[in-house]
Amino acid sequence: MENWLNSLFTETPQDGFELAIKLSRMGVKYTQPTKEILKKGREQYGEDAQFLITASHVIATNFRTIADTNNYWLTA
Amino acid sequence: MENWLNSLFTETPQDGFELAIKLSRMGVKYTQPTKEILKKGREQYGEDAQFLITASHVIATNFRTIADTNNYWLTA
Amino acid sequence: MENWLNSLFTETPQDGFELAIKLSRMGVKYTQPTKEILKKGREQYGEDAQFLITASHVIATNFRTIADTNNYWLTA
Amino acid sequence: MENWLNSLFTETPQDGFELAIKLSRMGVKYTQPTKEILKKGREQYGEDAQFLITASHVIATNFRTIADTNNYWLTA
Amino acid sequence: MENWLNSLFTETPQDGFELAIKLSRMGVKYTQPTKEILKKGREQYGEDAQFLITASHVIATNFRTIADTNNYWLTA
Amino acid sequence: MENWLNSLFTETPQDGFELAIKLSRMGVKYTQPTKEILKKGREQYGEDAQFLITASHVIATNFRTIADTNNYWLTA
Repeated sequence: MENWLNSLFTETPQDGFELAIKLSRMGVKYTQPTKEILKKGREQYGEDAQFLITASHVIATNFRTIADTNNYWLTA
Repeated sequence: MENWLNSLFTETPQDGFELAIKLSRMGVKYTQPTKEILKKGREQYGEDAQFLITASHVIATNFRTIADTNNYWLTA
Repeated sequence: MENWLNSLFTETPQDGFELAIKLSRMGVKYTQPTKEILKKGREQYGEDAQFLITASHVIATNFRTIADTNNYWLTA
Repeated sequence: MENWLNSLFTETPQDGFELAIKLSRMGVKYTQPTKEILKKGREQYGEDAQFLITASHVIATNFRTIADTNNYWLTA
Repeated sequence: MENWLNSLFTETPQDGFELAIKLSRMGVKYTQPTKEILKKGREQYGEDAQFLITASHVIATNFRTIADTNNYWLTA
Repeated sequence: MENWLNSLFTETPQDGFELAIKLSRMGVKYTQPTKEILKKGREQYGEDAQFLITASHVIATNFRTIADTNNYWLTA
């Protein structure tokens, strides 16, 4: 895998949330590296509310880690 | 994406809970940005108890992060 | 939404557990604010063990936040 | 609800694990207080592996809270 | 239940991971104590990927508690 | 089981994320040690979006533990 994660620090909470999304997607990509399959799955499940809310749960879990890292962006 | 998250600090626990809801919804919206699909999903699944309780779980996970940020609103 | 959450502090662990239940229910209510739909869902799913155990998971997640807030009720 | 939770402190890790089980069950019981329905559900789902592993997840989440409370039973 | 959990301390991270597996299994066993039913369930679901990944989630949750206990095996 | 986990410390966040993936896979492998069954399951479920997003959740949970261990790679 190419280099994609050098730091958990971000400038703003929103940047941190978007990094959490990236981690969540990379967790999927490492588990299923074939691009075509991923794309097909996204088309099928992107309309499924249970899938979407679970995706949001994964993002929340990763965001917790990133928010801790950044001391909740106390000086922001 | 427009600017939507500048701070995890809120004045009251209830404001924090409502911010947790916003984070949970944004996790869904980033995963499925098409408004019409989201609306259709909400109509279908808004009556599904398993979906609703999972949504509450995501909110709880985000609320934990926000409560930590605000030191549990100790002075509230 | 009316004012419903002023503090995460409670006198006893049991009060804290019951507040965790309230947070879990409010997470559902914010996601589906229509009372009649909620009532129908509760009738359908209140007998479903998978729903009940997931509800207990949400409560556990919220209880963690509240127990931390109250320093685990160290003087109780 | 009668008084059932006075403290999160236990003497041993195993006592703490068993208290975590109690919290997990009470989360179910508060959500569905009718005893007959609970009993029927337990008969139906007690053989379902997905239910059992989810129950174990709830216990793990509650155990974390209790282990923190007891400082991981450092003197045990 | 016999005595099965005296301490959350382990010598190595791998021992801690294996203790996390034990806690996860005990969570199932307390919920369904009948051995024959457990064995049948394991045969049915041991091939189900959704069950296996959920089991891994429970282990991850318990491992977090044990890693905290052992201060992440800092001297290892 | 052979020796496979000596330390939770890694040089970079990405190495930590990849170790989180390894822990998630080992949680599956301990639960279902038969290689052929695991391979069959991976073929069947590797295209299932709900499975993939749950796998990403397990990775997120393990990554939290590893990020804590490494003090969020503060000097990275």
